[in-house]
Amino acid sequence: MKAMIVTIGDELLIGHITDTNATYISQKLNSVGIIVAERMTVSDDPQQIKYALLHGLANYELIITTGGLGPTSDDRTKDVLAHVFDSELVRDPEVERHVRDLLARRNIPFNSYNYTQVLVPKCSETLFNAHGTAPGLWTQEDESIVVNLPGVPFEMRWLMEEEVLPRLRKIPSRMDIVHRTLVTFGIAESLLAERIAGWEKALPSYLKLAYLPAPNMVRLRLSAYEVDGDMANADIEAQFRKLYDIIPDNIVGYDTDTLQSVVHRLLRDNSMSLAVAESCTGGRLASAFTAMPGASDYFLLGATTYSNASKIGVLGVNPETIEHFGAVSEQTAMEMAECVRRITGADFGVATTGIAGPTGGSDEKPVGTVWIAVATAHGCKAVMRNCGTHREQIMDRAVAYAIEMLRDAVLGRNM
Amino acid sequence: MKAMIVTIGDELLIGHITDTNATYISQKLNSVGIIVAERMTVSDDPQQIKYALLHGLANYELIITTGGLGPTSDDRTKDVLAHVFDSELVRDPEVERHVRDLLARRNIPFNSYNYTQVLVPKCSETLFNAHGTAPGLWTQEDESIVVNLPGVPFEMRWLMEEEVLPRLRKIPSRMDIVHRTLVTFGIAESLLAERIAGWEKALPSYLKLAYLPAPNMVRLRLSAYEVDGDMANADIEAQFRKLYDIIPDNIVGYDTDTLQSVVHRLLRDNSMSLAVAESCTGGRLASAFTAMPGASDYFLLGATTYSNASKIGVLGVNPETIEHFGAVSEQTAMEMAECVRRITGADFGVATTGIAGPTGGSDEKPVGTVWIAVATAHGCKAVMRNCGTHREQIMDRAVAYAIEMLRDAVLGRNM
Repeated sequence: MKAMIVTIGDELLIGHITDTNATYISQKLNSVGIIVAERMTVSDDPQQIKYALLHGLANYELIITTGGLGPTSDDRTKDVLAHVFDSELVRDPEVERHVRDLLARRNIPFNSYNYTQVLVPKCSETLFNAHGTAPGLWTQEDESIVVNLPGVPFEMRWLMEEEVLPRLRKIPSRMDIVHRTLVTFGIAESLLAERIAGWEKALPSYLKLAYLPAPNMVRLRLSAYEVDGDMANADIEAQFRKLYDIIPDNIVGYDTDTLQSVVHRLLRDNSMSLAVAESCTGGRLASAFTAMPGASDYFLLGATTYSNASKIGVLGVNPETIEHFGAVSEQTAMEMAECVRRITGADFGVATTGIAGPTGGSDEKPVGTVWIAVATAHGCKAVMRNCGTHREQIMDRAVAYAIEMLRDAVLGRNM
Repeated sequence: MKAMIVTIGDELLIGHITDTNATYISQKLNSVGIIVAERMTVSDDPQQIKYALLHGLANYELIITTGGLGPTSDDRTKDVLAHVFDSELVRDPEVERHVRDLLARRNIPFNSYNYTQVLVPKCSETLFNAHGTAPGLWTQEDESIVVNLPGVPFEMRWLMEEEVLPRLRKIPSRMDIVHRTLVTFGIAESLLAERIAGWEKALPSYLKLAYLPAPNMVRLRLSAYEVDGDMANADIEAQFRKLYDIIPDNIVGYDTDTLQSVVHRLLRDNSMSLAVAESCTGGRLASAFTAMPGASDYFLLGATTYSNASKIGVLGVNPETIEHFGAVSEQTAMEMAECVRRITGADFGVATTGIAGPTGGSDEKPVGTVWIAVATAHGCKAVMRNCGTHREQIMDRAVAYAIEMLRDAVLGRNM
């Protein structure tokens, strides 16, 4: 079964928001064996919405749209749907009850704008939206299904999970789609391609290989479409095992693994604890860990010590160290790591101090200079990394380098 | 001038990555007065890429693609482009010199995979990519321009800024596009629509209004296409000024303003300082501020005190408070805020403590319960908020509520 996703909204085409809905719906359709063949983004203009729907109906068995179901004048999806299916808008008493109830709970009066929300095309089945006032719509005609969902991500996700996916799972003769990813670290894409060329050539033809490069990292994905899922999974695992002989030192993990999720697992499995002292990364290093459920098992403290006074007062860094060597220095980084480890009693202390820009750089210490230190029971080590030229990039790379150093320390390497 | 953006890559259609490139290119094209009429995402399959290019050439004057320019077997954009323009791939000596140089600096040998990167369609002009091995391509024929950019976001952005936008700015008879946004807080979308209905009706017809709802917030956008930019800007500002009479208490700011950017400005303008102590928000509250350049002017300390020991040891919270009332309590939140303010000497201390889930909830304190406290020279105040059911949502909402409370405190309200 092939599908098209249509995301509707001027705010997408002018770049005011990023289309995370398309990502989410793509994931979910793949998870139930439906191939997303095309995605399209169009404006709120009824002509554009109509063009997208007709193109989808002519080419695919399933069309999912998001957006344009709200109460205001720029919400036109229902009008167009009714027009395309030669139907009309009628009042839905159940939707009206729900909308009135939701608004009453928030002390908001039901007005004429809300009234447009309780109108639905006669040709459609409504999908109950527990979290919002705009219902989803399910319209089936001949071999085609059109699903319309609200654009608010949280409401859209809930409707996909609770209403859309259960119906799609019931479609007979469904096959599986399998995507598996091997995460490699520290080897350039072209070099990796050369190293594994023999392996790639010998892959069964139904497995499709993709290279997904990122800074310092390449993800290798094997995909199998419209197959028996268990068989394809077993095949892919066997293929990945072969790579352990070819690039043993470069494999970090699988699928959604990241450097931080690998370290998270290592720390939890070994009952070890972590504390971090951040300057230029400003809380991102702490966030990288605390975003993962279970981080409270090992994460003792994250101190964003931006000012020298807090480096001294909170962590206990020697003021003379900062005065002699500067806040961005090997010595300060090491003291920050050692201090945050000592005051918390953590097994590992990690520190970052650098110049994230856009100002504050000098010839000697240009923007992008970051010192990263890791302290353990066996000692402390610091390295200097140039993390780029843009504030966001510098912060993210510094966090990546810090986690890489921590990983080596947890594994007892290079310390 | 109307444009289509085509993003190429199976990783998009299977939802492994979010299409931030499309967002960025949309913004940039709007900034030079080019209307993005449609966006499309297709797979790495040459047939799909060809279909997208032909559709674009038939309907729009500018097509920008990203992806499929890398060195491996799933990179097919150049083949298709050469085919569509009835051209052929030829070696580009300048690109080859650059690729060899880039690889040599990283100690990576030039191999046959890199050789494919130095082939470019004869019909195209190459766009120098300082940050990567894949050049951009610019192909012009009759009234149509096709631009192909690499998919790696950092490289794509650099090429847009340095090569593509300067060329687009030179196109004669360009008009402007103006988008301006007014950020409102604390009023529901349908109520807002009703309140400003008279204002909306009286808008000049060339100004297009859009409502962009988010939790607790609605952005009102006025857009003007193919106009004189200065005139449209003046018109929009005059229209927004009228709204100050209609909804005076609900306007937060303009355009890219967020609650945190407003507070950031307030703190800097008033030379006031901030320190935060986070439990359940795990560094996100600190990150919300430190992501903004200039945060070091006022941000003294962010302490992610996940463990009770660090709440006590680092902040100085009384162990009895935690024992009697629990870590997630009004009393603990208030002590955290007061302590972090006292140990740093900051004007404002903000604290969060709650249950981000997915485990750790109870009947009395369900997942989503968050206490937020703000301490100032005049006292301390804490409120309890239910921030939802999902970890990410709970953390983000708790951060939003905390910043809202801080804003009120900085403005001297409700304290």
